[in-house]
Amino acid sequence: MVEGGKSVLELLHSDFEVVQLLATPGFFDQNHKALMGLAREITEVEENELAGLGEYSANNAALAIVRMKPNRAPAVNTDEFFLMLDGIRDPGNLGTMLRTADWYGIKKIIASEDTGEVYNGKVIQSSMGSFTRVNIFYTDLEQYLTKNVLPVFGTFLAGDNVHNINFGTSGVIVIGNETNGISKEVEKFVTKRITIPKFGNAESLNAAIATAVICDNIRRRKS
Amino acid sequence: MVEGGKSVLELLHSDFEVVQLLATPGFFDQNHKALMGLAREITEVEENELAGLGEYSANNAALAIVRMKPNRAPAVNTDEFFLMLDGIRDPGNLGTMLRTADWYGIKKIIASEDTGEVYNGKVIQSSMGSFTRVNIFYTDLEQYLTKNVLPVFGTFLAGDNVHNINFGTSGVIVIGNETNGISKEVEKFVTKRITIPKFGNAESLNAAIATAVICDNIRRRKS
Repeated sequence: MVEGGKSVLELLHSDFEVVQLLATPGFFDQNHKALMGLAREITEVEENELAGLGEYSANNAALAIVRMKPNRAPAVNTDEFFLMLDGIRDPGNLGTMLRTADWYGIKKIIASEDTGEVYNGKVIQSSMGSFTRVNIFYTDLEQYLTKNVLPVFGTFLAGDNVHNINFGTSGVIVIGNETNGISKEVEKFVTKRITIPKFGNAESLNAAIATAVICDNIRRRKS
Repeated sequence: MVEGGKSVLELLHSDFEVVQLLATPGFFDQNHKALMGLAREITEVEENELAGLGEYSANNAALAIVRMKPNRAPAVNTDEFFLMLDGIRDPGNLGTMLRTADWYGIKKIIASEDTGEVYNGKVIQSSMGSFTRVNIFYTDLEQYLTKNVLPVFGTFLAGDNVHNINFGTSGVIVIGNETNGISKEVEKFVTKRITIPKFGNAESLNAAIATAVICDNIRRRKS
């Protein structure tokens, strides 16, 4: 279920299959073009009806039901970066990570089986439409990494300063669980330990924040 | 109200005044030293009692009631960076910003009057104890900036690439509202427009994420 005009519009421009779409007359009028070809699936509803249907009462435009995509391993190219999520639990963090990955041009995400569900409403909402552009594949990370040929970067307290690392042109960026960090099973595959330098007193950074800082440092090398 | 063992411990090491502290026997036993001098304020409670009292049911250690600090303008030094929040509404974002500022050694935050309340439970929780180490001053930003002498950095779609900017040694970093960005009233004071370069397709970055990327770029210059 995808709520809100902006997210629904992103959806209509994606390869997701819309099963049903509820839209207010206002949304319908403003988005004729994007809605063409969907006539059978659209139901017009009033704003007050819509507000009661979804999870987010502020939605006054549209709500869509989409078909979930099959869980498929992405093709591995040696000229791109993958994000690997090792037990990300908070849906807000997960959605923000999808949005951040999308901003930084990382399209493939490998997630542990205990990572939150990407189709959770809060994940969809905080991804701000980016769930339509990045692919997330849930799998056993240990098994996945056994066959991996790319460098594996992981964040630890004692690693090399992310400001000084040459990330090259490809790799797997591992982001650990919010409380426990990277698991033992995944840690043994890490080929490069990195650290985001601290200048103040917080004990740690939020996992989505760490993801963004690493992505920004990776891309800086390429710009 | 501060919930959770970790946050309460940070509190005990801060200059906040604890009005009341509820602690489980386990927390009490493990933290004798930090709790000394607070005898009058402590009430021992069982875990199941504690779970019912706070906002977060996972809390099994401690809960504290603290006195809010007076809203005072911080001293301005010309060798440090300030964060300015121009209408940050989401409490999770606000807490994450405090945590991020604390990590990057930014201790002074100036917030618009329509920025979320720092003593909101979700802000306290997502700041992970950092609310004890950064000061937030709520004020009319337009009025505040009239008297400001530091450079003012603001993020816009068409600004200079944050990767190439020399931030110098001091300034005000303005973070705009999650939906509308920096307000017109504040925009006119911005002396340097900056942009976080995009490599993919997301329309924007989350406000707390943008804060972190800018802070990381500022500190890189100094390291």
